[in-house]
Amino acid sequence: MLLSKAQIKLITGLHQKKYRNKTGLFLAEGPKVVRELLNSGLQLHSLLTTDDISKWPNGTLQVSDTELKKLSALKNPGTTLGIFYIPDPVEARVDGLVLALDAVRDPGNLGTLIRLADWYGISSIVCSEDTADCFNPKVVQATMGSIARVRLHYLNLREFLNHCPNPVYGGYMDSDSVYSTTLSENAVLVLGNEGQGISDEVSQVIDHRISIPRFGENGTTESLNVATAGAILINEFRRPTGR
Amino acid sequence: MLLSKAQIKLITGLHQKKYRNKTGLFLAEGPKVVRELLNSGLQLHSLLTTDDISKWPNGTLQVSDTELKKLSALKNPGTTLGIFYIPDPVEARVDGLVLALDAVRDPGNLGTLIRLADWYGISSIVCSEDTADCFNPKVVQATMGSIARVRLHYLNLREFLNHCPNPVYGGYMDSDSVYSTTLSENAVLVLGNEGQGISDEVSQVIDHRISIPRFGENGTTESLNVATAGAILINEFRRPTGR
Repeated sequence: MLLSKAQIKLITGLHQKKYRNKTGLFLAEGPKVVRELLNSGLQLHSLLTTDDISKWPNGTLQVSDTELKKLSALKNPGTTLGIFYIPDPVEARVDGLVLALDAVRDPGNLGTLIRLADWYGISSIVCSEDTADCFNPKVVQATMGSIARVRLHYLNLREFLNHCPNPVYGGYMDSDSVYSTTLSENAVLVLGNEGQGISDEVSQVIDHRISIPRFGENGTTESLNVATAGAILINEFRRPTGR
Repeated sequence: MLLSKAQIKLITGLHQKKYRNKTGLFLAEGPKVVRELLNSGLQLHSLLTTDDISKWPNGTLQVSDTELKKLSALKNPGTTLGIFYIPDPVEARVDGLVLALDAVRDPGNLGTLIRLADWYGISSIVCSEDTADCFNPKVVQATMGSIARVRLHYLNLREFLNHCPNPVYGGYMDSDSVYSTTLSENAVLVLGNEGQGISDEVSQVIDHRISIPRFGENGTTESLNVATAGAILINEFRRPTGR
């Protein structure tokens, strides 16, 4: 069936944050991601597929490849596009391990970090207001469905950390080795921007600066990517100690 | 200056593996990566830039943005493009920790793994013949220069592992926890394909299957991306024990 102009405008509008905020909706692309979000109980607005519609909930719209391509925010659109309601905001949790992001901008990195948080049972990520939007279609895709289980909170990060009862750790390039730092079970781990690292403003409220030591003899290696460094640091917090 | 047809054909040809093998040359894009490769002593064939040529070695060619864009293999070409000689093959090392890749296909993942190997002082990566080519321009860019310090060996992986004197560990989804497995200092760590994991053929020569335990209560989390899982597992091998 053919989509109406209003439907097309709604969907392509959701590529933009402004319009997502206005409508309270977001796009999820690819059959795997859409299936995960349906299973996780997120509220569906509408669903479009080039696939057999009998595999999908009642009311799913059949569209052509050409139509789907026009609506997609991705280079390689999958067969299925879902429009979901953005869940209602909840208070950020402060118990256990909390991940905090200071201006992480790349959608792929943010998606990978959300997926990692999900794997390691971290249910809250607090973000500075200039961190990439977690309902950006590229981020949603990179989370592979984890966006349904991990809640992101955009706030004044310095304020939040300043009032946080638990110790605040920050990932830096050249500070104390994470291996010789005592890592608290209730803690916040801050990761910084791809190019700049943690901002000066946020650095002022960091209690412990930690680094992943370089093992190579060569001192010129570029720093690790923020998602890679995040994986290693989160694992250090979560792994059983004293093996 | 204008490039000759032959020069254009040479450079765009290097987007393809067949032509890289034939000429023994590869492309590196972006000023940071090119600078790293120059500093690391890789042999330069030629260099093109839209930048001030006085910042670059003698013989650097000045080109326009439009020309550079035509030559680039990337979506966002930087200001500088270098053509380097592929270094002569050397024998794969088997002492210390060796990384082995079984059909890792995504250039971004391969680049991230090379950068990780460099960070952790791993100088050899052995790869199945169907692993992505490390001189693919996207891989070269993702390594951020680490390609100059880490050598990749494409070979019959099963054969290599079968004759390897050290224990062979493989990363799997659901096997023994890496935290409770004794990790040898001299070892091979095998990581598998993005979708399929380690192939059946290679699995037959794995001594120890290891996994990163899921901490979330939710069993439906997608597996971790191979580069992320690789980061965590390499760190487990390299970190000091018994903290």
